[in-house]
Amino acid sequence: MFFIIYRCIIFVMFSIKNSLHFPTQPIMAHKNETSQNTTVEKSQNNNLPKLFIHGPLKLSSILQPHPSHNFHILNPSPSLPLHQFISTDPHHASDIAAIFCTGLYPLNADILRLLPSLRVIVTSSAGTDHIDLSECRRRGIQVAGVGDLFSDDVADMAVALLIDVFRKITAADRCLRRQLQSASWDFPLGFKLSGKKVGIVGLGRIGLEVAQRLEAFNCIISYNSRNKKPLVSYPFYSTVLDLATNTSILILCCELNNQTRHIINREVMLALGKGGVIVNVGRGALIDEKELLRCLIEGEIGGAGLDVFENEPNVPKEFFALDNVVLSPHAAVLTSESFSGIKQLVEQNLIAFFSNKPLITPVI
Amino acid sequence: MFFIIYRCIIFVMFSIKNSLHFPTQPIMAHKNETSQNTTVEKSQNNNLPKLFIHGPLKLSSILQPHPSHNFHILNPSPSLPLHQFISTDPHHASDIAAIFCTGLYPLNADILRLLPSLRVIVTSSAGTDHIDLSECRRRGIQVAGVGDLFSDDVADMAVALLIDVFRKITAADRCLRRQLQSASWDFPLGFKLSGKKVGIVGLGRIGLEVAQRLEAFNCIISYNSRNKKPLVSYPFYSTVLDLATNTSILILCCELNNQTRHIINREVMLALGKGGVIVNVGRGALIDEKELLRCLIEGEIGGAGLDVFENEPNVPKEFFALDNVVLSPHAAVLTSESFSGIKQLVEQNLIAFFSNKPLITPVI
Repeated sequence: MFFIIYRCIIFVMFSIKNSLHFPTQPIMAHKNETSQNTTVEKSQNNNLPKLFIHGPLKLSSILQPHPSHNFHILNPSPSLPLHQFISTDPHHASDIAAIFCTGLYPLNADILRLLPSLRVIVTSSAGTDHIDLSECRRRGIQVAGVGDLFSDDVADMAVALLIDVFRKITAADRCLRRQLQSASWDFPLGFKLSGKKVGIVGLGRIGLEVAQRLEAFNCIISYNSRNKKPLVSYPFYSTVLDLATNTSILILCCELNNQTRHIINREVMLALGKGGVIVNVGRGALIDEKELLRCLIEGEIGGAGLDVFENEPNVPKEFFALDNVVLSPHAAVLTSESFSGIKQLVEQNLIAFFSNKPLITPVI
Repeated sequence: MFFIIYRCIIFVMFSIKNSLHFPTQPIMAHKNETSQNTTVEKSQNNNLPKLFIHGPLKLSSILQPHPSHNFHILNPSPSLPLHQFISTDPHHASDIAAIFCTGLYPLNADILRLLPSLRVIVTSSAGTDHIDLSECRRRGIQVAGVGDLFSDDVADMAVALLIDVFRKITAADRCLRRQLQSASWDFPLGFKLSGKKVGIVGLGRIGLEVAQRLEAFNCIISYNSRNKKPLVSYPFYSTVLDLATNTSILILCCELNNQTRHIINREVMLALGKGGVIVNVGRGALIDEKELLRCLIEGEIGGAGLDVFENEPNVPKEFFALDNVVLSPHAAVLTSESFSGIKQLVEQNLIAFFSNKPLITPVI
C-alpha cells in the first residue's frame, strides 16, 4: 500500500527536520545549502551523514532548518527534485548517504546510479514499488519501510466507508444539513451490513485487519490474492471475477502494479451485481474509474466508498452528484497518531542505521 | 431501545396490512370502518380478531385495505388516535383484541382500561417503556416486542458514527463535494480509533454487539449499566461520570427513563475531556442537548455522532455548522432487512397468538 500524499509528506519531512538528533554529532546550521555553501560549512558537513528528502513539498516554510538539529539535510526546503539537485549540485549529491522518500516519488535504477554514496533509503509508505529493490540489493543499499504502522488506520477507514455506503450515513448527514428536515427524515432505507459476503482483494496486513473487523460484524469473508495463504481459513478465489461473483462487497487492499491495474473492470462490477459495493483503500488505478462511474450512475452496482482516485488530487466531478458514493481525500492513513508514528519510525530507522544497528522496519 | 420513527411505522403498518394471513378466516372487505358499517359487515367482522394500529401515519394511501386479507384491521388508515377512536366508536373499540403499536405511542393504564377485550399487544420497538406492563400483567395481556432484531443494525450504526467522527469522513466528503479540491486535499488530520478506551452506557443486547465490534478494532471496553453484569468481563463503572473519567469515548445504548434523562450532562462531558467523543444511538434526551452544543462549540469535547435528538424530527440548527458532528435522522434501525424482519415478526407473533401458541418474541 502506498498511502503517501501531500500532507503526509509535509508532516513527515517537518517532523524529521525537527526531531533527528544524532547526539554524537555537533549542532549544524544548514540554511540555503546549494552551491553557495562556504568552505567552513562544507568542512563541517563532511562530518555528518547527508540526508536528501525526496518528495513534493510546497509548504517549504514549515521545513526551515532548526538550529538544534545535528543531522545534515541537504535540502531542508526540497523544492528541487532529486534529478535536478544531482545535475545542479553533483558534488553534494555524490555525498548523499541517506534518502527519505515518499511512495509517489520514484527511486529507479537510473537515479540510484547517480548516488554512489547512498547506503540507506527510508520510505514513509507501506509499499515499496517506487524503489528499485533489485538495484538496492545489488548495491547493498538498505531500505526501511513503515512496517504495519498504517494497517489499523487503513482498515478502520475501509470498514467506515463500507458501513457508510450501506447505511447512507454521509448522504443522510448532507441531507439534514441542507435543512430540508421533513425530506431528510424520510431519507431512503439503508442496507444491513451484518451477514453480508465480503471479498477482500489483497490479504496482506491491511486486508487481514479488515477481515478481523468485519468478522465482528458477522460478515462472511473470502479473498483473492496472488497466492492462497496457507495459514488463512477464509475461502480463496484465484481471480477477482470469481470473488466478485461469490460476494456482494469488494474491499481493495492490494498493491497497484501491472497485474492489478484496472483489476476492477466492468465485467467484475457486473459480476458483483446491482446491490454490490466496492471500497477502495488501495490505489485509484485498481479500478477502471470511468467504468465505475458508469456502473454507479446506471445502477449496475449499488455504491462505492473511495479513498483513492486515478488522478489525485483530482476527483471526477461526476461523483459529486451521486448519493451512493462516499468520497475521501486519500485520508486512510491521515491520523495524528500515524503521523507521529512515521516521525518516530523514520528517526529510529536512521538512528539505527548510522549506529550500525539493524533497521527497525527493514524491507531489505 | 425505542427505534421507531415515521418511516418505520409506515413500512410496518403497510407490511402488516399486506401480509397478515390467517388461513382459517374468510377474506374480508373492511373499508371505511366506523359507525357506517353495515349489519352484514359487522356480522362478518365478529368472526375475526380485531387489530388496532396505534401509531402516527400520514401516508394512509399506502394502507388501503387489500382484498386478499382476512385479518380485520379496524383502522386501515389510522389517522385517528386510539383515544379518539375509542370515544368515536366505543362499540368497535370494545372489540379490540390486538394492538400493533410503535415505541412513540403510549399505552398507559388509562387507555388499557378502555379496551376490555384486549389480549395481545405487538410493538415494533425494542423498548417497551411506552406500555404499562404492570397493567398488562394484571390483565393477562400478552406483549410481544422485536427481540434482538435491531441489535446488529444499531450496533453497526454506532460504530460507523464513531469512526466517522474520529476520521472526519462525512466532513471530508462534504468538503470534497464543495469542489474546493486543493483545500479539501489539505483537510485536517483525523484520530486513530484503534486502542482507544470506549465506555458503553447500557450493556444490553445492542451494547454487547457494539462491544464485540469495537474489540475487533482493538478498543478497550468498559461499561456502565444499572447493575454489574455477572457474566461480562469488561470493567464496570457504577456511574456514568466515573465511566467518562476513565474513557475517551461514550456510546449511549441505554433506555430513556427518569433515571437516564440527561444522564450526559456538562459534568460528564467535561470529565470525558477535550478529545472525547459521544455517540448516541439511544434516545436524544439521554444527553442535555444544549450543553452538548455548548461543549462542542467551545471545544470542551472533541465530537459527537448523533442518531437521535431531543425534539425529533427537529435537529438544532447550530449543529449544521459543526464539522466535528455527524448527524443521522434516527436511522439506526432503518435498513430494508430490519423492516422486512419487523413485518415477519409482527405477523408471526399475531399468528402465534391467535393460534394459541406462544409468542415468538414475548416481553410478557
